[in-house]
Amino acid sequence: MEPRNEVSLSIRRPFDPQIHDLDPNFRLTRFADLKGLGCKVPSDALTRMLEPFREDKSLLDSEQSHFQYVAATPRIGIGMDACITPIRHGGLSLVQTASCLYPIIDDPYMLGKIVGSAVMSNLFAMGVTECDNMLMTLSISQKMTDRERDVVVPLIMSGFKDCAEEVGVTVNGGQTIVNPWMYLGGVATSVCQSNEYIMPDNAMIGDVLVLTKPLGTLVAANAYQWLDVNEKWNRIKLVVGEEDVRKAYQRAMFSMARLNRIAALLMHKYNAHGATDIGGYGLLGHANKLAGIQKNEVGFVIHNLPVIAKMAAVSKACGNMFGLLQGHSAETSGGLLISLPREQAAAFCKDIEKQEGYQAWIIGIVEKGNRTARIIDKPRVIEVPAKDKEGELW
Amino acid sequence: MEPRNEVSLSIRRPFDPQIHDLDPNFRLTRFADLKGLGCKVPSDALTRMLEPFREDKSLLDSEQSHFQYVAATPRIGIGMDACITPIRHGGLSLVQTASCLYPIIDDPYMLGKIVGSAVMSNLFAMGVTECDNMLMTLSISQKMTDRERDVVVPLIMSGFKDCAEEVGVTVNGGQTIVNPWMYLGGVATSVCQSNEYIMPDNAMIGDVLVLTKPLGTLVAANAYQWLDVNEKWNRIKLVVGEEDVRKAYQRAMFSMARLNRIAALLMHKYNAHGATDIGGYGLLGHANKLAGIQKNEVGFVIHNLPVIAKMAAVSKACGNMFGLLQGHSAETSGGLLISLPREQAAAFCKDIEKQEGYQAWIIGIVEKGNRTARIIDKPRVIEVPAKDKEGELW
Repeated sequence: MEPRNEVSLSIRRPFDPQIHDLDPNFRLTRFADLKGLGCKVPSDALTRMLEPFREDKSLLDSEQSHFQYVAATPRIGIGMDACITPIRHGGLSLVQTASCLYPIIDDPYMLGKIVGSAVMSNLFAMGVTECDNMLMTLSISQKMTDRERDVVVPLIMSGFKDCAEEVGVTVNGGQTIVNPWMYLGGVATSVCQSNEYIMPDNAMIGDVLVLTKPLGTLVAANAYQWLDVNEKWNRIKLVVGEEDVRKAYQRAMFSMARLNRIAALLMHKYNAHGATDIGGYGLLGHANKLAGIQKNEVGFVIHNLPVIAKMAAVSKACGNMFGLLQGHSAETSGGLLISLPREQAAAFCKDIEKQEGYQAWIIGIVEKGNRTARIIDKPRVIEVPAKDKEGELW
Repeated sequence: MEPRNEVSLSIRRPFDPQIHDLDPNFRLTRFADLKGLGCKVPSDALTRMLEPFREDKSLLDSEQSHFQYVAATPRIGIGMDACITPIRHGGLSLVQTASCLYPIIDDPYMLGKIVGSAVMSNLFAMGVTECDNMLMTLSISQKMTDRERDVVVPLIMSGFKDCAEEVGVTVNGGQTIVNPWMYLGGVATSVCQSNEYIMPDNAMIGDVLVLTKPLGTLVAANAYQWLDVNEKWNRIKLVVGEEDVRKAYQRAMFSMARLNRIAALLMHKYNAHGATDIGGYGLLGHANKLAGIQKNEVGFVIHNLPVIAKMAAVSKACGNMFGLLQGHSAETSGGLLISLPREQAAAFCKDIEKQEGYQAWIIGIVEKGNRTARIIDKPRVIEVPAKDKEGELW
């Protein structure tokens, strides 16, 4: 299958519309006006809107303790956590998550992989490593020609399906609609025993915070698109070269498509006290959400920011429009932010690098606090270079 | 809670934007340009796009016989059936379905109920009567003001939640995005033993076809909106009065919000050979899909069309733009089309009317054929009147 062969190359060729008899200027990213965070509703507005759900009688049912937890986090829309629902059959719970993304890259096959990875990431953040079914939700833009649709959609589906196969799950259902904008999303479901997931609310004073993917995916994706847009490119070309941008884009693309599954497996091995995955609300946004649901009176303090090489400079060069170093820049299919016992964190990082060839970083600590997260004034920026032969990992 | 009280009235008051300090001309239905069928991708195009999934290795795994069935029906987008996925835990399968709708009525609370009912209807069509979890997916139109959003969204969520509570399931997660158009959808999941669902592919020669809700929901919803649009209203006012339209709209609204759950329970009691629910592809479209997956060489022939009173005349009066009597008119949260043993059908219809106070109709037969469905030349139109006190059923 063509996409399979493509990704086995040491460097993935950019998607070439002409190979598929499409206009050379065809760009998937032009079929939605919002990117990254845009996909989400402002967190505070959402929390207000969700008030009706707070009164849910079931939340008071002491036998459904999970609902207590679920009630403690917004149950619609945030997509930070998977929800946990006890079912009729002995001791089992449904762990489910739904999310979707607007096109952030122009390569349909890789977009499918990235979205599949982003959807399942919410399960992995709960320490769930097995997925029982994936649904795929696709919105096809009205602005797409039939020809464009018939080329792009099967490639997207192949990427989504290949991503699912990496964790041994089939894409078994879903939904397709017609809409002004294109988006791709999915639902991941796992039926779990209680020892198969890790509640995210047990962070303890003295823990350290580990991040499993570098930041800057949105910056890299934008910088890459700006190669075609002179006025944009002129703003950043002083701090970054074309080759740097291509490498950063390459790194971002493979990072977004990479599954957080090994990290989830290691969360069990190294007794993680809770985790979340970094997405549209950025590092600080998701760190705050995770801090907010903690049982203990803790606070998260972040000292280090691992960032895809040169993207910190790009973010500064364009007037800090992304807020990358403040932790506000939206990430797509970002890493897991994990609260680990201090004595286990180094071993966790070593183990994940041994198994995947990708680094993880200790970026902060858990101290006594009021369930919020902050980044220190001058965090240390760790430049994360692109791998020479990224593709070989595929 | 206000919406609760509203539906306990014998006739539901139309949603009044001014009560909520919204512009009197606020109409939910204006936040999406497509209705009914518009939500779906043309069936043939979809089937083409789904080819990649056909080669799925898992489909050849003889131990996963369910996948064989799933493979026999489009697995993405059609939303005609729930998918069935065997899971790791003994003998259990995940039965899941995802669907969504653009606003077809202006009452946010009722829209929530209708969409909840439409989502679960795909489970009921498989004879599944228990739902373990519901996710809600909401797209908020960018064109909505914050004020409109903060009024409408909680009402929608209350309706969706109340619908879920009717089957004893909580809405435990989901997703909200920002988009040019508004839509509302959900995912319904049930973890089932194999005796809890009914495979839809066992229709037999000599069966009869039963339909559990009247047709014409889209026509009624449109006719109601045309009360405000002179040139439209002038086209139909010769065949229908304003009061008829309000009654038809009322009937359509409650019919769409009504659950197909009792029908699903009775499918077991009366040994149904298969079913589907009627939605965006219209009666004939869904009948053809159901016929297409049958194991036996059968064909469906439809003789009777139960239609919401006066809507057949309206459909004709506006140049048959809906194709209602040809079975093409999109339905929202329509009835189940069930293939029943001839000797059981009458008892099924009597039973459902006894339990719900709503009629079901024998509309056709199953004969030897090539797995297609057709409506005879001059089908008998059964005018289904609005109930005087519809609301009392709530």
